[in-house]
Amino acid sequence: MTVTADMAISLDGYVAGTDITPDNPAGDGAEALFEWIHNLASWRQRQNMTGGEDNRDSELMREWFEATGAVVMGRTMYDTGEEFWGDNPPFRAPVLVLTRRPRPTLVKEGGTTFTFVTCGIHSALAQAKAAAGNKNVDIAGGASTVQQYLEAGLIDELQLHVVPTLLGAGLRLFEHLSTAPRTLQPVRVVGTPLATHLKYRFVK
Amino acid sequence: MTVTADMAISLDGYVAGTDITPDNPAGDGAEALFEWIHNLASWRQRQNMTGGEDNRDSELMREWFEATGAVVMGRTMYDTGEEFWGDNPPFRAPVLVLTRRPRPTLVKEGGTTFTFVTCGIHSALAQAKAAAGNKNVDIAGGASTVQQYLEAGLIDELQLHVVPTLLGAGLRLFEHLSTAPRTLQPVRVVGTPLATHLKYRFVK
Repeated sequence: MTVTADMAISLDGYVAGTDITPDNPAGDGAEALFEWIHNLASWRQRQNMTGGEDNRDSELMREWFEATGAVVMGRTMYDTGEEFWGDNPPFRAPVLVLTRRPRPTLVKEGGTTFTFVTCGIHSALAQAKAAAGNKNVDIAGGASTVQQYLEAGLIDELQLHVVPTLLGAGLRLFEHLSTAPRTLQPVRVVGTPLATHLKYRFVK
Repeated sequence: MTVTADMAISLDGYVAGTDITPDNPAGDGAEALFEWIHNLASWRQRQNMTGGEDNRDSELMREWFEATGAVVMGRTMYDTGEEFWGDNPPFRAPVLVLTRRPRPTLVKEGGTTFTFVTCGIHSALAQAKAAAGNKNVDIAGGASTVQQYLEAGLIDELQLHVVPTLLGAGLRLFEHLSTAPRTLQPVRVVGTPLATHLKYRFVK
């Protein structure tokens, strides 16, 4: 059972722009972080659309979809994505949402369920592991959720899709972490014109 | 004439640790950023030592040495490096040091000269270009010097040697930049167990 985190990130370390709201989930100025994804065949397929590019980037996205058996996300990510994902969200797996407010589980089409966990990151991860079968649990975001799992040493593999842009402002992934250096082992590097895909495993 | 910047950086974006002083040039907690360099054959050769590993990382370091015809650095980098570099510094090329205090040029062994430029980054770059022949000018650091050249749009190629570690604190390379997004083009990706070498060209 591998716990992964998989983020699109600018070369200068931002995973979202400024002024994030439910109507503006990527924030201002951060369009480039995500626009390379929209035309990938594997992504379009999960959005119930046809066509798109069947390139190396698309293969890596498909790999993520196929490897992931359950997802953990923060409340802000859920709130900002809810409407966009619609009745048949792309996860097609159990999603555990970290929140302070209890709420009944939502069953969507295609295998996605949203279960709201009010008792913290360890509980959400345990529930996700129980739901994932022999597949991975992915900590999907946002930044503060990934930071909490990083800080707790609960992430095994980190994949960064480094988009070739400098944003200069926004929400940083690597922030609010303690200063004890942590060593990773490079697992794979794939460079394409769209992004540089860096996969690391934490050395325990 | 290509203007380059070439930095070792942690996966979380730090190019030095905390509490940088002349006696502690890399800062606290940042040893991992530079220790992979010490045993590269090409680096040892420039330090007038024999031996070391002749691996892909060493080749990339040699490439940098051979391509660079002049170097620009900030005053803090000069102050922290001066003693360590000794009588035969590794640059073997003209070095322009940005400073506010006039000082006579220092001629070292092996082709390195240190010329102190008091009239700003554009002047230092112009002097470096004049001195570089048909080779590159490298903006060597530290972070604030590279930031000033990035901000002014004067860097053509940026190479980051991403060391597989999270430091959690220190001096960030990407800080104090304006928020206008800037697009880069990936030029080359080389992954080794020691570092992931990412080379980008700025799209003008």
